Amino acid sequence: MGQRRSKKGREQAENELEWGPFDPTMKPIKDSVHDYIALDPVAEALIDTPSVQRLRNVKQLSTVRLVYPAANHTRFEHSLGVYHLADTAIEYLDVDADTADHLRAAALLHDVGHGPYGHQTEDVIHRRTGRDHDEVGWLLTDPDRPVCQALERLELDPERVATLIEGEGHIGALVSGELDVDRMDYLTRDAHHTGVPYGAIDHGRLVRELRLENGRLVLGEGNVATAESMLYSRALMNAVVYRHHVSRIAGAMLDRACERYLDRSDAEIGEFRRMADHDLLVALAEHVPALGQRLEHRDLYKRAVWTGIENVPPGTADVGYEEQRRAEHEIAEAAGIDPGDVIVDIPDRPRLKESSTSVVVDGVVQRLEDASELVRGIRMAERARWRLGVYCPEERTEQVGEAARDVLDLR
Amino acid sequence: MGQRRSKKGREQAENELEWGPFDPTMKPIKDSVHDYIALDPVAEALIDTPSVQRLRNVKQLSTVRLVYPAANHTRFEHSLGVYHLADTAIEYLDVDADTADHLRAAALLHDVGHGPYGHQTEDVIHRRTGRDHDEVGWLLTDPDRPVCQALERLELDPERVATLIEGEGHIGALVSGELDVDRMDYLTRDAHHTGVPYGAIDHGRLVRELRLENGRLVLGEGNVATAESMLYSRALMNAVVYRHHVSRIAGAMLDRACERYLDRSDAEIGEFRRMADHDLLVALAEHVPALGQRLEHRDLYKRAVWTGIENVPPGTADVGYEEQRRAEHEIAEAAGIDPGDVIVDIPDRPRLKESSTSVVVDGVVQRLEDASELVRGIRMAERARWRLGVYCPEERTEQVGEAARDVLDLR
Amino acid sequence: MGQRRSKKGREQAENELEWGPFDPTMKPIKDSVHDYIALDPVAEALIDTPSVQRLRNVKQLSTVRLVYPAANHTRFEHSLGVYHLADTAIEYLDVDADTADHLRAAALLHDVGHGPYGHQTEDVIHRRTGRDHDEVGWLLTDPDRPVCQALERLELDPERVATLIEGEGHIGALVSGELDVDRMDYLTRDAHHTGVPYGAIDHGRLVRELRLENGRLVLGEGNVATAESMLYSRALMNAVVYRHHVSRIAGAMLDRACERYLDRSDAEIGEFRRMADHDLLVALAEHVPALGQRLEHRDLYKRAVWTGIENVPPGTADVGYEEQRRAEHEIAEAAGIDPGDVIVDIPDRPRLKESSTSVVVDGVVQRLEDASELVRGIRMAERARWRLGVYCPEERTEQVGEAARDVLDLR
Amino acid sequence: MGQRRSKKGREQAENELEWGPFDPTMKPIKDSVHDYIALDPVAEALIDTPSVQRLRNVKQLSTVRLVYPAANHTRFEHSLGVYHLADTAIEYLDVDADTADHLRAAALLHDVGHGPYGHQTEDVIHRRTGRDHDEVGWLLTDPDRPVCQALERLELDPERVATLIEGEGHIGALVSGELDVDRMDYLTRDAHHTGVPYGAIDHGRLVRELRLENGRLVLGEGNVATAESMLYSRALMNAVVYRHHVSRIAGAMLDRACERYLDRSDAEIGEFRRMADHDLLVALAEHVPALGQRLEHRDLYKRAVWTGIENVPPGTADVGYEEQRRAEHEIAEAAGIDPGDVIVDIPDRPRLKESSTSVVVDGVVQRLEDASELVRGIRMAERARWRLGVYCPEERTEQVGEAARDVLDLR
Repeated sequence: MGQRRSKKGREQAENELEWGPFDPTMKPIKDSVHDYIALDPVAEALIDTPSVQRLRNVKQLSTVRLVYPAANHTRFEHSLGVYHLADTAIEYLDVDADTADHLRAAALLHDVGHGPYGHQTEDVIHRRTGRDHDEVGWLLTDPDRPVCQALERLELDPERVATLIEGEGHIGALVSGELDVDRMDYLTRDAHHTGVPYGAIDHGRLVRELRLENGRLVLGEGNVATAESMLYSRALMNAVVYRHHVSRIAGAMLDRACERYLDRSDAEIGEFRRMADHDLLVALAEHVPALGQRLEHRDLYKRAVWTGIENVPPGTADVGYEEQRRAEHEIAEAAGIDPGDVIVDIPDRPRLKESSTSVVVDGVVQRLEDASELVRGIRMAERARWRLGVYCPEERTEQVGEAARDVLDLR
Repeated sequence: MGQRRSKKGREQAENELEWGPFDPTMKPIKDSVHDYIALDPVAEALIDTPSVQRLRNVKQLSTVRLVYPAANHTRFEHSLGVYHLADTAIEYLDVDADTADHLRAAALLHDVGHGPYGHQTEDVIHRRTGRDHDEVGWLLTDPDRPVCQALERLELDPERVATLIEGEGHIGALVSGELDVDRMDYLTRDAHHTGVPYGAIDHGRLVRELRLENGRLVLGEGNVATAESMLYSRALMNAVVYRHHVSRIAGAMLDRACERYLDRSDAEIGEFRRMADHDLLVALAEHVPALGQRLEHRDLYKRAVWTGIENVPPGTADVGYEEQRRAEHEIAEAAGIDPGDVIVDIPDRPRLKESSTSVVVDGVVQRLEDASELVRGIRMAERARWRLGVYCPEERTEQVGEAARDVLDLR
Repeated sequence: MGQRRSKKGREQAENELEWGPFDPTMKPIKDSVHDYIALDPVAEALIDTPSVQRLRNVKQLSTVRLVYPAANHTRFEHSLGVYHLADTAIEYLDVDADTADHLRAAALLHDVGHGPYGHQTEDVIHRRTGRDHDEVGWLLTDPDRPVCQALERLELDPERVATLIEGEGHIGALVSGELDVDRMDYLTRDAHHTGVPYGAIDHGRLVRELRLENGRLVLGEGNVATAESMLYSRALMNAVVYRHHVSRIAGAMLDRACERYLDRSDAEIGEFRRMADHDLLVALAEHVPALGQRLEHRDLYKRAVWTGIENVPPGTADVGYEEQRRAEHEIAEAAGIDPGDVIVDIPDRPRLKESSTSVVVDGVVQRLEDASELVRGIRMAERARWRLGVYCPEERTEQVGEAARDVLDLR
Repeated sequence: MGQRRSKKGREQAENELEWGPFDPTMKPIKDSVHDYIALDPVAEALIDTPSVQRLRNVKQLSTVRLVYPAANHTRFEHSLGVYHLADTAIEYLDVDADTADHLRAAALLHDVGHGPYGHQTEDVIHRRTGRDHDEVGWLLTDPDRPVCQALERLELDPERVATLIEGEGHIGALVSGELDVDRMDYLTRDAHHTGVPYGAIDHGRLVRELRLENGRLVLGEGNVATAESMLYSRALMNAVVYRHHVSRIAGAMLDRACERYLDRSDAEIGEFRRMADHDLLVALAEHVPALGQRLEHRDLYKRAVWTGIENVPPGTADVGYEEQRRAEHEIAEAAGIDPGDVIVDIPDRPRLKESSTSVVVDGVVQRLEDASELVRGIRMAERARWRLGVYCPEERTEQVGEAARDVLDLR
């Protein structure tokens, strides 16, 4: 595989020769999903930065482990997996060596912008900074940070890497888009670690069937079923893993605990954002002891309300965070309990990014939703699984339920 | 697990005590899918009959192995798997010990009526006998056959076992119905052996969630996604495995070869039906050498036509075998080649038996297609994947294609 | 399986009936190794105690994750696995229902005595308390603790459970002994999560072949190879996982960091012992920042010495902790560096507890080392893999190596 | 991976471009063990020859499937696996493109010399032709055979390929030697299909750690445990799979049935050798009906004697076939039964070819048996598992056992 390494990598590795004449530059790491992952010198250098090492202590599925106890895998191993799949895909795509180097770096670094507990603190961070986890320019282009320095030593452009992570440009879609290697890895890895079979997509095939057609990333001819399988897998994993009610309750409790912690302590959001999971757990135990301890002992709130889209007034799914907080207060007041003990959890409407996947059918690039009858069915099924939840301590679910139905005008 | 064994089994095994005090009666067999399968004395006695041993030489996926080379598993190991899942399901169902014994026997014997190459010779046999492979009364109730004698020695009613295999009665649905353990095993096993991931259903959950409600076999509350997964898994396995065009071509060639063999030789259909795969392979090599050798060397016909439902005249999918044979002759004549060298392959309209699965939703038993928006989507996708095929030797595909489009009035 | 549940469990679960007539009392948990683990009411009650929930935050393999990035599994999921294997073994053993209940509780609770980072802090704790992690009487019999209260509510004897965890009594060997379900689970689970294949023992067979013969736990006839496989698997996992040099270096650094933390802070050992991994990580970052940060960023010491038993003076393997610390000081002085920057790591002589496993051969109970020629070979191989290590910051390995060879009188 | 393809392959594939710009020449096949196997044009051409297609109908483990019902995998899929591992190893070895092409061809063709039922008919064929299954010059260099013609069309030297299959030359050891990719594939594959875990070697690592040192194939530094694992895996698979007594009984019955078939029919040995499994099964059913039917219905002989090396007179393990046949006659006469109903089965002394594996230890190439204490232990364990067997119909085991102990002078 030696030829696909960039000149940079080659020179750097010239004196090591640990791995024989054809592939002298690769360091193998054992992964539980992809077996051996061979790191090129670029990856090897980046991996040693604090920004990447920190991901060892950020769990991939945050509160899902309270439902599936084996789901303790981290964003570090996931990042290695995404790097590996990007590396394989690049073999089959027509990109120059420099772009390939930037792509591999972007794949490895795509999650360094995550806060503690990954997606679970995304909203808190967004509300206070206006930034998403994949906006990582602040981190990668800061010359004081080791990761920026490492990129520059490797003669890679930090700005360009950051842009790829945001999915910009036709080839950024490989790292962040509806056909990205991110989801190929996480569906497979989350299935492996939860023990749930539904994430079993054919990533070996997907990654080999990617093509660039007129500057767009597409799946080659004969892959409608392959594309559908990814869509469907996500829908099933949503239903039984990602949006399991216990995980959503714990996630909502964590969100509220983080808000209170940031309100009460003198922690700044920038500092918060760079915490690892263990830092946050300890901080919550100290500053928000009631919720913190409930989370540590899995002594979770229960559902006072759990209801579908057909039972809520129009527009409810679009209600903002402030309005939800106000509703919590009203409900608490009506139920006669502490406002901190009620959580209203209204998820966004289900989107199915994968439905706009591009596939070649009879020589023409089509959107999956146009090529597959299935997409509409899955979209309807996703809609049918949407739930609004109101949670509170077990002994108050009855009063809170009643108050919530009144305040939120539920059927 | 001792208590779930019938009195019959217990007495017979009393003096063996190979397996300790709680479960003295079970013989373990190692399976590549379910790890250890414990055989109760009833299963152990039935397994030694020639009817079951023959299944060691009947492949589960017949011609699919010409596409997926590792798909060499047999109806014998599949039958053990179905027995095992039935046995587990019975633990969670409220059936008496005698019914349980009959069910386990039916699960183990459910495929003894298959001809050589399983489903691939179903049509030949049905055209000449009017019987399906799951009508096994002729075999199980024939007092001259060891399998009938074994059932009677075990104090089981052969007639009742045969009826269960046909799926009759509320509990027969466990063996043959839209929620049967047959499909739970084959989806999992076919995925394991082809290497295709899409058959990965959660059979561990399915089998524990079966209930009898008012005499109907249903999936308990909270299992819409579980039921959908089975439906979807079948749809994907159809697309990439069961109806792969190479497998369909080989299957159609086998069907024609069997017809010619039965026409030319003095073999009777009853004898044919009891052949194992190897007997048929040798018989074809002798009596139908041209097609026989092509099948052995994977020197298969190619597609002259491969077209979807939107391109065929109304009613085409319902055309009978005789009409297809006549079309073959017409096409061959028009193309100026030997009529034996053209095959017209028109599959039935796709049915989705699983869509009538019963699931409990909010305390009410519903049909899956009423409870799930997904079913319609899958049904449409299945329809979109329907293909009419016309096959012939590679060097004649052009002429035959042209003639076929004319004769069959295709767009 | 209903019959094997104790009366206690049955009564408690009478009104739930979630799982059908045969097994109304079992709650299923999805595990990545054993698929579904069914919890009986005893296990369900115990799992909710803080002592067991804490194990969610104690990693099974502590520093091994710095070598195998996917090895993030916890003592919580391992404890569920051990419970599950004990539960299966009990089906095949002749024990009364009350003993069975105590055994299952002991299996589930066997690791509650572990400090943060499990085995990695065992020595620190032992040096300061004189106690091993499996001495859990202090915890289980303390009436102020929820776990003790839960046991008593379940009418189980905390003292008896503690004794079983220490492996006492003929049947305690199932929980802690050379044939215990603990190692059956961890070999399999550690292999699954590291991605290393060598832990693949046949636990399905082992657990079904356990017998009580004259009050001793033995493997039944025909299992010499099964017993050998467990022994060999441990030897290989030792070589490539448990005693990987990177893991040993990180482990030694953690040990020293814990000592310093306990010396410097006002933390008591009792408090330390009840920490979870995240508490310790944060405490080290605060109180022992240099080592703490090195551990977090995987900026580890390197080997200055790494040498086998044949190169060390007789008796070296038996040298105590104090002597090792003295040697560190002498080496640091000779090399002219800070004494905190040198670690001498002298492991115990390899023991092979599994070699005294009892197996039935030709009707007679034998020790595995007498029944198998292999044991001696594995013992010799283990001895050949013993290594004394001296570690320090990368830039000082040369001087430290030289000094260490002198101080420790190495060849 | 494009660069490692030979010029021949490249030219041939120039117009296909099915697989994108980097790897236009590879055709993927789905395998249940290695996932996707990419065939280069050389492999693709060779696979279509009757000699390779025939391997679809030769089982890998012959009679083992009578013990492990899922062990129905074929020498075809195994040959693909060996090709794949050779292809991967070649990436890490310093061989020229032409040698690489010959090696890949040899890997794919290494089993074409096998008779029906593989190793099980090796002895019959050797006794009548004096040839082993890996002497394939007669087949590969015969210009009338398609496989020879294909090699020549591909500009490969059939003679050289045949030599590599026999393991000659330093690099032939990759195909046939103590470190060959043949055993790496079969240990893994046989474990996958039997469901037995012990074949789980780390083939991913083995294949990447092969080196050529002074013209010898060795495992690079740090791989003693990797080499031991292969040795140990073989020893365990021998014990529980390859030499399982039921498989040995069925194998001995097949051997005798073949002898009688060749004696009675006018089949020539050359013709016999080219049969596939199904041809042989049908031939035996016709010409040796008693044994043939017993094999088909798994109605096997039982053990009259089963005894270890310590109970047989010196030299017994070296007794030749003729002497064994004479002993059978004597035993039959003494027991008063038909001589065709007694089988004496004396296996060779156990050899452990793997023990001479070369590994680099501290920079020096050593034989594994010198570098590892384990080898002796495994050798002794193998010796302890050697068994002499005498088999006959179940109802005569007592008389035959008595007669055999007398005739063979057993303790």
